Amino acid sequence: MEDTTLEALIADWRSMVETSLQEHLASPEPILDPYMGMMHYHMGWVNREFRPIARFVGKRSRPLLLLLACRTLGLDAEKALPAAVSVELLHAYSLLHDDIEDGDEFRRHSPTVWKIWGIPQAINVGDGLFGCTFRAMAGLHGTGFGSDTVAVAMSMLIDTSIALTEGQFLDIDFEQRTRLSLDDYTRMVQGKTAALFGTCLACGAHLSTNDGPMRERFRRLGEQTGIAYQMLDDINGIWAHANDTGKAPHQDIRRRKKSFPIALAFGDRNIGERILALYNRDMKPENVEATLALLAAADIRERCLHLYGLQQVAIRRTLEEIGRVLHLEGRSVDLLAEFIGRLLSVPDLR
Amino acid sequence: MEDTTLEALIADWRSMVETSLQEHLASPEPILDPYMGMMHYHMGWVNREFRPIARFVGKRSRPLLLLLACRTLGLDAEKALPAAVSVELLHAYSLLHDDIEDGDEFRRHSPTVWKIWGIPQAINVGDGLFGCTFRAMAGLHGTGFGSDTVAVAMSMLIDTSIALTEGQFLDIDFEQRTRLSLDDYTRMVQGKTAALFGTCLACGAHLSTNDGPMRERFRRLGEQTGIAYQMLDDINGIWAHANDTGKAPHQDIRRRKKSFPIALAFGDRNIGERILALYNRDMKPENVEATLALLAAADIRERCLHLYGLQQVAIRRTLEEIGRVLHLEGRSVDLLAEFIGRLLSVPDLR
Repeated sequence: MEDTTLEALIADWRSMVETSLQEHLASPEPILDPYMGMMHYHMGWVNREFRPIARFVGKRSRPLLLLLACRTLGLDAEKALPAAVSVELLHAYSLLHDDIEDGDEFRRHSPTVWKIWGIPQAINVGDGLFGCTFRAMAGLHGTGFGSDTVAVAMSMLIDTSIALTEGQFLDIDFEQRTRLSLDDYTRMVQGKTAALFGTCLACGAHLSTNDGPMRERFRRLGEQTGIAYQMLDDINGIWAHANDTGKAPHQDIRRRKKSFPIALAFGDRNIGERILALYNRDMKPENVEATLALLAAADIRERCLHLYGLQQVAIRRTLEEIGRVLHLEGRSVDLLAEFIGRLLSVPDLR
Repeated sequence: MEDTTLEALIADWRSMVETSLQEHLASPEPILDPYMGMMHYHMGWVNREFRPIARFVGKRSRPLLLLLACRTLGLDAEKALPAAVSVELLHAYSLLHDDIEDGDEFRRHSPTVWKIWGIPQAINVGDGLFGCTFRAMAGLHGTGFGSDTVAVAMSMLIDTSIALTEGQFLDIDFEQRTRLSLDDYTRMVQGKTAALFGTCLACGAHLSTNDGPMRERFRRLGEQTGIAYQMLDDINGIWAHANDTGKAPHQDIRRRKKSFPIALAFGDRNIGERILALYNRDMKPENVEATLALLAAADIRERCLHLYGLQQVAIRRTLEEIGRVLHLEGRSVDLLAEFIGRLLSVPDLR
């Protein structure tokens, strides 16, 4: 039995993570204020005039996952704070560059950094955040971890940062391809989303225990969660109501994004060729409608939800496996399971 | 007295560095071959069809500086190879992103990565190289260094990677400014060039000795060398013959780059206002000529060369200071001094 609610933990940790993020991104000298200001804008703390605002800054799911892994395995989460900050900074940098690469003009209803300050500054601000990611992780030296432990955490971070770029390469590359299999899609998601989710849980486990197999169970759980998370994001990108996600309706189709439902549709013997033909043209409104109709005819939404359900089963199995081992030590995986459940809940679809 | 020539050392080390760079950037799986291929292209190893070519791959000055620091202080340079590779990768990533940010279509007479594969892939390839930079440094764990030593080297690298982005922020920001002082210019160069040069020598010293003051002397020498290097690059950007540098003639003026000579000219009471007025207009050919005439009227080239000479004096003093201490240990700073001398030799100017 847990003596605290997930709600209370999340509120507590979000504020702890936010404070630490702000300390890590404090401006070192006045001449750099506008530089750090662009980072602060991207983090959701200030407006384009660099004045503080109160707005939704993001769910901070990745740091929360890392801290939950620590708590689940009995480590005081505060000790792992530098690692939690680090994974959020890595995520933030990758979003900033993704916005440029995808030509996205808005993020959470606000103009993106490149849209306001131009592509050159935006690339460079992302690079700065990337550097700060590693500096944050090195902060583990100051919370009581030995150099060997920090070195392993650092290597996990480095490998993940490279995996992210591999996934992003495939994502951009797929835009040019006419064919795409579900395997290709899965490989892409492995890099783009699953690697970082895996590292959040594996790094939390690494900081908490020397139990190698346990660390790998946590990594597996994180990767499975990451894949499910991306599947859901892709389902939402076509069928979610705009207000739920901040995305324009059918956004992924209008941008001919070769996402999970489309990879599935490409492989369908009835509609595959026709979807392919549509996707290789300009995506005019009537083509969006035609694509949606084809997807509906082949039950793609339902098949996506079915595969998504199977992925959730796999996650539940890993959670149970971890739970059985922890039970012997008088620990529980319940809060972690509850948090993952929230991350992966499906909103009402169109 | 040294028992080997600088020439022989450089040839030896360049080939060792190149081999290790290639190992670090080997493609991990076929689906990523085109991704790694873009990195290989940027490194100068393959053409745009990813076929191996023999061409000038760059001077690799930064790894050579790092290895020379090690040798000067008595460390077997081969042990520091991962650090040498790391600083070259950091430099390579920053060039790749700079090319996008500056809109440069050619590098060493070949189209830049973004020009061939587009901005989205180019940003992402740079990010990948950035990640590989840290992975390379972590390789010091495998050449006999303890985790504490590697952690310090890693922190130097992290700080430098952030300093690079600070310098680049200022460089881009200066393009929009109407005023610019020599102090502003120096602050920018500190981040953009001097920090990495400083880290090359400081990191080499750190790996070779526990002598903290010596490490700081090497850092100072590196930073002084980096500032001189950038001064020279900026002088060349206006007055060097095109064949010597691979740059178009007067390139920096045509692009209204606020480089060293221009920062000096802005502060000149006779031509400052007129240069400012020219720089705030479109840089048509007649304005390039007018700018050059103003620079000539105020002896800006000679004044730049004078300041450059003073910077070389400062470098010589630091070299002498290091030389005196090393002499007591029966070591010599001669090869390092010779190498820095070559880096900083002035070509014939117009």
